[in-house]
Amino acid sequence: MSEKQHSYKLAPWQHRLHEIIFEADTPAGRVFDIALLVAILVSVAAAVLESVDSVRATSGKLLLYVEYGFTVLFTVEYILRLLCVSRPLAYARSFFGMVDLLAIIPTYLSFFVAGVHSLIVIRALRLLRVFRVLKLAHFVVEATLLMTALRNSSRKIMVFLGTVLTLVVILGSLMYVVEGEENGFSSIPLSIYWAIVTVTTVGYGDIAPQTVLGKFVASMAMITGYAIIAVPTGIVTAEIVNAERRNLTTQNCHHCFREGHDKDAVWCKYCGKRLNPPPEE
Amino acid sequence: MSEKQHSYKLAPWQHRLHEIIFEADTPAGRVFDIALLVAILVSVAAAVLESVDSVRATSGKLLLYVEYGFTVLFTVEYILRLLCVSRPLAYARSFFGMVDLLAIIPTYLSFFVAGVHSLIVIRALRLLRVFRVLKLAHFVVEATLLMTALRNSSRKIMVFLGTVLTLVVILGSLMYVVEGEENGFSSIPLSIYWAIVTVTTVGYGDIAPQTVLGKFVASMAMITGYAIIAVPTGIVTAEIVNAERRNLTTQNCHHCFREGHDKDAVWCKYCGKRLNPPPEE
Amino acid sequence: MSEKQHSYKLAPWQHRLHEIIFEADTPAGRVFDIALLVAILVSVAAAVLESVDSVRATSGKLLLYVEYGFTVLFTVEYILRLLCVSRPLAYARSFFGMVDLLAIIPTYLSFFVAGVHSLIVIRALRLLRVFRVLKLAHFVVEATLLMTALRNSSRKIMVFLGTVLTLVVILGSLMYVVEGEENGFSSIPLSIYWAIVTVTTVGYGDIAPQTVLGKFVASMAMITGYAIIAVPTGIVTAEIVNAERRNLTTQNCHHCFREGHDKDAVWCKYCGKRLNPPPEE
Amino acid sequence: MSEKQHSYKLAPWQHRLHEIIFEADTPAGRVFDIALLVAILVSVAAAVLESVDSVRATSGKLLLYVEYGFTVLFTVEYILRLLCVSRPLAYARSFFGMVDLLAIIPTYLSFFVAGVHSLIVIRALRLLRVFRVLKLAHFVVEATLLMTALRNSSRKIMVFLGTVLTLVVILGSLMYVVEGEENGFSSIPLSIYWAIVTVTTVGYGDIAPQTVLGKFVASMAMITGYAIIAVPTGIVTAEIVNAERRNLTTQNCHHCFREGHDKDAVWCKYCGKRLNPPPEE
Repeated sequence: MSEKQHSYKLAPWQHRLHEIIFEADTPAGRVFDIALLVAILVSVAAAVLESVDSVRATSGKLLLYVEYGFTVLFTVEYILRLLCVSRPLAYARSFFGMVDLLAIIPTYLSFFVAGVHSLIVIRALRLLRVFRVLKLAHFVVEATLLMTALRNSSRKIMVFLGTVLTLVVILGSLMYVVEGEENGFSSIPLSIYWAIVTVTTVGYGDIAPQTVLGKFVASMAMITGYAIIAVPTGIVTAEIVNAERRNLTTQNCHHCFREGHDKDAVWCKYCGKRLNPPPEE
Repeated sequence: MSEKQHSYKLAPWQHRLHEIIFEADTPAGRVFDIALLVAILVSVAAAVLESVDSVRATSGKLLLYVEYGFTVLFTVEYILRLLCVSRPLAYARSFFGMVDLLAIIPTYLSFFVAGVHSLIVIRALRLLRVFRVLKLAHFVVEATLLMTALRNSSRKIMVFLGTVLTLVVILGSLMYVVEGEENGFSSIPLSIYWAIVTVTTVGYGDIAPQTVLGKFVASMAMITGYAIIAVPTGIVTAEIVNAERRNLTTQNCHHCFREGHDKDAVWCKYCGKRLNPPPEE
Repeated sequence: MSEKQHSYKLAPWQHRLHEIIFEADTPAGRVFDIALLVAILVSVAAAVLESVDSVRATSGKLLLYVEYGFTVLFTVEYILRLLCVSRPLAYARSFFGMVDLLAIIPTYLSFFVAGVHSLIVIRALRLLRVFRVLKLAHFVVEATLLMTALRNSSRKIMVFLGTVLTLVVILGSLMYVVEGEENGFSSIPLSIYWAIVTVTTVGYGDIAPQTVLGKFVASMAMITGYAIIAVPTGIVTAEIVNAERRNLTTQNCHHCFREGHDKDAVWCKYCGKRLNPPPEE
Repeated sequence: MSEKQHSYKLAPWQHRLHEIIFEADTPAGRVFDIALLVAILVSVAAAVLESVDSVRATSGKLLLYVEYGFTVLFTVEYILRLLCVSRPLAYARSFFGMVDLLAIIPTYLSFFVAGVHSLIVIRALRLLRVFRVLKLAHFVVEATLLMTALRNSSRKIMVFLGTVLTLVVILGSLMYVVEGEENGFSSIPLSIYWAIVTVTTVGYGDIAPQTVLGKFVASMAMITGYAIIAVPTGIVTAEIVNAERRNLTTQNCHHCFREGHDKDAVWCKYCGKRLNPPPEE
């Protein structure tokens, strides 16, 4: 979107390229998006499979060439993206610009630095590029609504997460004292890890209370964790209900041009003029 | 429903048969549905029990005859269903037509192909036929409302699932690098499996982080999984609230054109004029 | 409540006894309820503690006498309850009448049948009597609202549970075939147990998939279980929101005496007369 | 808040001190709050790290001095807080007054009583002081809304928790009888612990049913636990929706007396008359 506003400086070929690469309104743009989607998924699948010993043994060479091929492709794509936007630097510094660059760097790095094992994580980050193609399938409205709901409730969720973190620190310290090193709670950080595993109801069972008092405290923690999951759910649900309600009112006043009217509003609540009758549904 | 629209071509005996087999309005139809329900449950129970070693040892023969008996019954039923619909091919290709066919195929196949162990899954699919009988107990309204809510929110849920899948792939890659093969994270697919086990709060504990950094990343993953469960819940709750609201209020006052009336309202609660009589359901 | 309607046959002493035992409006009734609450909790605690080896070794005798004492007390209480209601048989057959009887039977039985270990469960059922005392603490409104919400959504929850049960049977059969006996999935019932442990996100880890395909199927099952928890939550939430909304409208029409009006209603929706202006809040 | 009402007795320097320490409106107050936040987090981190064997071995001395330093700081702060409130005793007995005192006691105690291991828990309680600083980041509204929602639903949640506790006691007694000591259910309290681990879907797997009947009962318990999580979620969600609704709409039109107006509404959406100006907040 923001790229389009500055596109007045672009040459016609840049304009056409921009439509293909960044938009999904034209047939060419749609074909490009689908091809990109397939390329991303295949390249991530290759990175994932390469980590399996038996696969690397039999077809490690093939996967390496696949990786080289996709790196070349994504490099060309990155250069084209830089060429067809009016402000290349702004694009390069944007979130997706960084992800696009990160998608090609690991392979080039591996030529210079041998055996950089951890580059595989960066290759997995390519998957984030899939969200670029959201617009293809008209998922933008849904994604936006969810993002809005989460953003609006982010403060409440932070208060909740802060409370949970305080809880697990205190709980972890308590269990460290109650159970002690001989029962596997060998330090407070480890006890906090146990508290998180318990309160979130994951429950690996690698560390579990052994003493009677420890089991009692753990029971309290579980019931607390089981009950307070209701809080973020309530927060997000209330926000989504609100976001959808706001979403339903698309009409704006023909006098003051403001929107945000309830479905059952007859009069504009901002200027007091009568609204148009709502459209038949 | 759709079969009925084309039933003008049917002979009277076909019509009667159709009412018994496909509908639940007549006493005969109700008896048929209950008998079918019992037959499905008993035949699936037989398939389930046959897999228990001790049961197969003592009464394997009996279970085999039970299975043969039900297969004959379901075959007769399938043929009758084909006979009493106006477009047998359309029925055979419908979802329930396929399930009905799948319910009888495994036993016949087992005569030709010896020891096809996996046929047992197909026999379990018979259980899907239970949903045919939903109309018997007036559960259709509830099932429809839930289906509508899920269908309306399917796009949002797909966006959510896509985000979760991206998350577990990146998380799995990260943990593969952080923990490594010596701690049980022997490949990225296995690490992704661990990430799914963790984010969904299942937590088997067969693979668990051993290093300090791994435990820290896992803690983040757990808290994330614990918090984002709120998102699908919020989506579905908002849809169910909406679906129920729509269900209750469809009519508007013919005088003041306001809506939002309860199902049992006779008079407009805003202007006091009589509402139209509600449509027969 | 229902006992009171028939209390016209009761003698004055029965009436007074009824007020003390069944109601909580008088000081005597309140004292009785608190004493009963304490007695129930202590007697259940005694039953629970008796099962601990070390406690039974040191104070088994004491706990036995405690149990005898409470049994005598509860027997007297049961007889008094029978005496002060107008229809003793109706009380004896009511839910709480059965629970009251079950609370005293085990001890008497243990005189005749030696070592009936399982009677301990029946003694734990005494805890259900605690709900009698709900009225004491003015929790009736809240309990009623929750019960109403659950009753109204019971059909939807049954459709949901039916779907979940179908899912775990099919999933269990599938995993039995995929994993097989050598990986711990030794029969379909056991595989169904595993499916329930997984879909409900409990995840003991006593049985866990070993093969790649099994882990893939398990991942699908986990994500499904993680997502569909949203459905019962949505159902119950929508019901509670509705129940509370209905709860808010306490005014009844002064003309037709019907209630259930929305907060914003100006006119009675049943008879068309103007409602009284809503009370100041 | 309450301290401010009594501040008429305070000298000007007390007044200024109070603004810095208790409020966050002035730049000095904000700096103080940020410094306090950092001090709390660092001091808790020091307590947590001190419990790790390897850290204590290398830098135990340093952590001890850090602890002494923060104790002196917090002591000075505590004295200043006492000095600048008009009713020091009321402050000392308030929740945060107790937490402030608890934050400094452990270190002083450790001089007199050697090796009081459990003091570490009290040091972790310092983390509660973080909530003092909530006002800094304008999280007060969100925290208040959540607190209101939880307080309003506390009775319903107590009914729910009471039901869950009754359920786990009966379930634990049942499993103790069904599984018995030979399968790890060695006493009813332990079985109740197992029931809590199961119903809350934590599922450590340290105790798991071994018999067929036990697995069946456990399956029922899991499905119950999986379904009833919907109840607290529904309760809290309904409360948050209500709390937000109340937050947004408190005024009614002085002409048609209808309410339900948005916070930013200037004109009544039902009759078109001007609304009263909203109250300053």
